Amino acid sequence: MKVGGTHYRTIWPHPEREGVVQIIDQRWLPHRFVVEDVASAEAMAMAIRDMHVRGAPLIGAAAAWGLALAASAAASEAAGDWYERLLRAGGRLKATRPTAMNLAWAVDRLLAVAQTCGSADEVWVRLRAEARRICDEDVEACASIGRHGLRLIREISVRKGGVPVNVLTHCNAGWLACVDHGTATAPIYAAHDAGIAVHVWVDETRPRNQGARLTAWELGMHGVPHTLVPDNAGGHLMQHGMVDLCLVGTDRLTRRGDAANKIGTYLKALAAADNGVPFYVALPSSSIDWSLFDGVREIPIESRAEDEVRFIEGLGADGQVRSVRICPEGTRAVNYGFDVTPARRLAGVVTERGICPATEEGLLSLFPERRAGGAA
Amino acid sequence: MKVGGTHYRTIWPHPEREGVVQIIDQRWLPHRFVVEDVASAEAMAMAIRDMHVRGAPLIGAAAAWGLALAASAAASEAAGDWYERLLRAGGRLKATRPTAMNLAWAVDRLLAVAQTCGSADEVWVRLRAEARRICDEDVEACASIGRHGLRLIREISVRKGGVPVNVLTHCNAGWLACVDHGTATAPIYAAHDAGIAVHVWVDETRPRNQGARLTAWELGMHGVPHTLVPDNAGGHLMQHGMVDLCLVGTDRLTRRGDAANKIGTYLKALAAADNGVPFYVALPSSSIDWSLFDGVREIPIESRAEDEVRFIEGLGADGQVRSVRICPEGTRAVNYGFDVTPARRLAGVVTERGICPATEEGLLSLFPERRAGGAA
Repeated sequence: MKVGGTHYRTIWPHPEREGVVQIIDQRWLPHRFVVEDVASAEAMAMAIRDMHVRGAPLIGAAAAWGLALAASAAASEAAGDWYERLLRAGGRLKATRPTAMNLAWAVDRLLAVAQTCGSADEVWVRLRAEARRICDEDVEACASIGRHGLRLIREISVRKGGVPVNVLTHCNAGWLACVDHGTATAPIYAAHDAGIAVHVWVDETRPRNQGARLTAWELGMHGVPHTLVPDNAGGHLMQHGMVDLCLVGTDRLTRRGDAANKIGTYLKALAAADNGVPFYVALPSSSIDWSLFDGVREIPIESRAEDEVRFIEGLGADGQVRSVRICPEGTRAVNYGFDVTPARRLAGVVTERGICPATEEGLLSLFPERRAGGAA
Repeated sequence: MKVGGTHYRTIWPHPEREGVVQIIDQRWLPHRFVVEDVASAEAMAMAIRDMHVRGAPLIGAAAAWGLALAASAAASEAAGDWYERLLRAGGRLKATRPTAMNLAWAVDRLLAVAQTCGSADEVWVRLRAEARRICDEDVEACASIGRHGLRLIREISVRKGGVPVNVLTHCNAGWLACVDHGTATAPIYAAHDAGIAVHVWVDETRPRNQGARLTAWELGMHGVPHTLVPDNAGGHLMQHGMVDLCLVGTDRLTRRGDAANKIGTYLKALAAADNGVPFYVALPSSSIDWSLFDGVREIPIESRAEDEVRFIEGLGADGQVRSVRICPEGTRAVNYGFDVTPARRLAGVVTERGICPATEEGLLSLFPERRAGGAA
């Protein structure tokens, strides 16, 4: 998507320096637009853990590039133990964030390629190509999600006679969470670009405010009308007919359609169900964990530092990004990063292959190769 | 309740200066404890509108004192038009915040007293006495809510064999929202004081963070174990058995039991219903609006300034209370203060006369004088 007229992805190989990857350091948005050079697997693991990059598809892409950087280092040192090095780097990358499916998916995909390589030089060339491929596939998957999801918005728009379609989204499942386009935002951008009037309710998404910081910023950059609301507001909006459609992303979707997503998603799905508002999860199939069934019991939920709850960052009157404490000095907090919305609360799932019910049968109808006995 | 060993109410007549009322200016909590002198009805209206004082029972008490201060001014000026002055002051006080029932209830109660007075001198003496009475009645009602609600916590504690009872609360329905004790917190304080192990999940309550700022502070002052959580977390906590009971206040409860409370309450009630967690609303009967039936349609919901969403206040590293912007510069926001939880989502209502189902029949069983044809 465009930033000030220039097209950006969220991650790309440095155009001049081999063995260096560039990312948008999202911690500074919306107040500053910072591009960061990442030159090692360790630095990429830190960038994922500390959320310079975040969003399930993007941390998959970042982990892929992280492993490619480990291969680059092994090649430049002509290291004989390059495969062991890659295994260790993959383990470190996987350990950074436990909930998102794409992290392990990308690391395992690159390690499978590495296993077929004969030398450190070859592995660097091959993993670099595979990381590029993962990025390009993600861009294509998100574009496809946009085309499929556009139908949902178009139908509502026709029914409303062109009055703006109100879409509520939680957290940032935008292009900043992916390589480009976004998952939940892809249908929104597609609708806006197709001339369909659409307005987005942006949940601020405490504690890290990815909605207020990132979704509001990227919608604004693309000119999509939107309004920021506290996470608490969605129920009231839905009770009063002010939401036509909820669209969110997911960090991991189980075989049965349970969806882990940013903490608070489940509450919005309950309000949608209580008020007859369709609630869809949009994702590339790389976010589906075909090995899990019951999301509430089986998906690991990340616990993060309590200071992310006790402090909030923002822009001070002096133009400095500052952190302020919002509670008494000694107050303890807990900080679960995600919750799981049971499949029964979802109207459906939007993938790169189309829209289906949030059920095992629905998912298998789009991905028949995942049936037991089918090709892996 | 005690602040640093000294007993405080939230509002009281100045011990030395006639015609002056003192309040805790809650905007500065938890970072500073500030007592403010209020010397006119206009100043009291501003203190209510700008939330120096907040919470349905407390703004009722504050409005009563505001009207008494208008009477004091009329008496000191020996004004002949004292009743018209009181009517105007009452109108201004009522207009400050539309959702809470207690505001109109208190103003109308004092105006009814004023109608029976013969002079400006008499009206000041009588309204001052009535304002004191409203405060004393609120303290007694909250203490009584504590005794009744204690039963709910005790039963769970017995069932759990003394393992701490986890109570989730939203916003601040504590003693800071009342004159003393609180509504939702009264049973918690009663349980804690009775030696029952209790732990409170404190919703931070965006946008104004009354949970993080006020509930965490007052529970901490009283030594009640508690943990701050983002508003988004409650669903996850309930899915995983970490909440035994939800207890919240209400700004207005309809005859049928629909409850307006701080925005976001409805989402927690939905999560409680989805997970079999009992969800109770605690209130003095002064918060019941016997004239309304359907809360979602009939209760007026206050819209506040969008900058309360766009900016957050907290304590900076330099010890200064600072405001920071959490979204892009041009981002628009909406700020609905309350939502309405339909009665069907409530396990019951805790009042000063006992606990009842959240139904018209349930409420009338405790308040039979409100039956059609009964005494008003």
